[in-house]
Amino acid sequence: MNPKITSIQMFGIETPIIRAGDDIVQALEASLQDAGISPVDGDVFVLAESAVATAENRIVELASIKPGEKALSLGEKYGIDPREMELVLQECDELFGGVPGAALTITKGILSPNAGIDASNAPDGHVVLLPEDPRKSSETIRKRLEQRYSCKLGVIIGDSRTQPLRLGCTGLALGISGFVPVEDARGTFDIYGKPLRLTYKAAADNLVSAAELLMGEAGERVPCVLVRGAPIQMVDESPEMPTISMEGCMYFGNIIKSRKEDTEKEKQ
Amino acid sequence: MNPKITSIQMFGIETPIIRAGDDIVQALEASLQDAGISPVDGDVFVLAESAVATAENRIVELASIKPGEKALSLGEKYGIDPREMELVLQECDELFGGVPGAALTITKGILSPNAGIDASNAPDGHVVLLPEDPRKSSETIRKRLEQRYSCKLGVIIGDSRTQPLRLGCTGLALGISGFVPVEDARGTFDIYGKPLRLTYKAAADNLVSAAELLMGEAGERVPCVLVRGAPIQMVDESPEMPTISMEGCMYFGNIIKSRKEDTEKEKQ
Repeated sequence: MNPKITSIQMFGIETPIIRAGDDIVQALEASLQDAGISPVDGDVFVLAESAVATAENRIVELASIKPGEKALSLGEKYGIDPREMELVLQECDELFGGVPGAALTITKGILSPNAGIDASNAPDGHVVLLPEDPRKSSETIRKRLEQRYSCKLGVIIGDSRTQPLRLGCTGLALGISGFVPVEDARGTFDIYGKPLRLTYKAAADNLVSAAELLMGEAGERVPCVLVRGAPIQMVDESPEMPTISMEGCMYFGNIIKSRKEDTEKEKQ
Repeated sequence: MNPKITSIQMFGIETPIIRAGDDIVQALEASLQDAGISPVDGDVFVLAESAVATAENRIVELASIKPGEKALSLGEKYGIDPREMELVLQECDELFGGVPGAALTITKGILSPNAGIDASNAPDGHVVLLPEDPRKSSETIRKRLEQRYSCKLGVIIGDSRTQPLRLGCTGLALGISGFVPVEDARGTFDIYGKPLRLTYKAAADNLVSAAELLMGEAGERVPCVLVRGAPIQMVDESPEMPTISMEGCMYFGNIIKSRKEDTEKEKQ
């Protein structure tokens, strides 16, 4: 192969089922050894948030939750178990509407249907909340892996999300460490040498989507994908995931309006 | 490496600048040969829609366009060149609101800001429309590549798109051929053996997002990424990209409402 060719390799890292309280870094180390893979500088670990959250004991038994009045009424409105709805209200920063099965929330600063709470891959009668602080989790895991393998790594806590008017889930980074999650390409030029008007590359989200090709949503027991060779900018910190305002969002610009009208109606 | 490990390889295929009327398959064949890469069964070619559209002569000189009254008023409303706005109106199936710089449309059945019309990577004073029929283009390209390399391939015409409340572009498949674009995982089970409630995997969109790690948005001259080893389901046809209704969409469920109110207001 021509050495000028850019290429990326991805490895699905199978582990035993991660259970509450497990040490996810130890599990990864064992699986990497089994697989005969040694991390090198620039490798990025994409971790499924459900595995990280489970290891962090973020599992809740629904029978232990008493839904309040608001959870009862919103649960009925959106067709969500009122006990789960109670957890959604506790976990989210903001709730602003929804459709059957999905209440739209901002949780830990990120748009998350149902506050990211999920019954999939949780023990029967339980749900998994999002990791307490995905950015901090990714940093802790990165530092431990970097020390173990003596190299500079990236770590992403990844989730899946539907896209507007599309069927199917793609990837989304909840928290990252060790690289620049969104690349600003505004100072660069197109193939004709014209400056690009406005272009950011969602490197972290693209890495999660790439990883989901090997991870799957179901029981594949592949909670981690190692990505090698991605042309990203490594940094020794844990940048926040940049977001945009509702007003500036192509999709939500309109929703704001409908919300304003709702509020006005309530005032009448 | 343990042979049980699942892995994916991706290669960025650099080509000379694709110009109007070029044969994109010939350009790819030459670049693959230069790179020393021979496609094999199951390989997927992700092609940038701008390169495919350019080869298909979908370039329009803005000076040749006379904007109508509607284009003038909508152009002003959304801060878009009225000549480009005229093309947006001609190309889209439906336009339903927007924010400064982006009119939200459905074009060729797919949610496309500004009908997918783009001035980036177009000659000065010109814009590139979407390929006339992305699904058909992907099929034609696939059949020619399959014949040339005597193997079963997938082809995607990919575009980039922002996500709700996120900064940065990720990948989206406009048209595909040779594999199942969205995998239905509803009959499968989670790691605890419980049936998954509702889960589709957007394999095609994830492949485009993965490819964008090597493609970039700017002048990298990498209009194609070859993905090898992705665990997708190959088929000898060109399935439509499945979409969901506005009513069932987590994000647009609310927008519909605001549109209804707009319509009601206009009637008053």
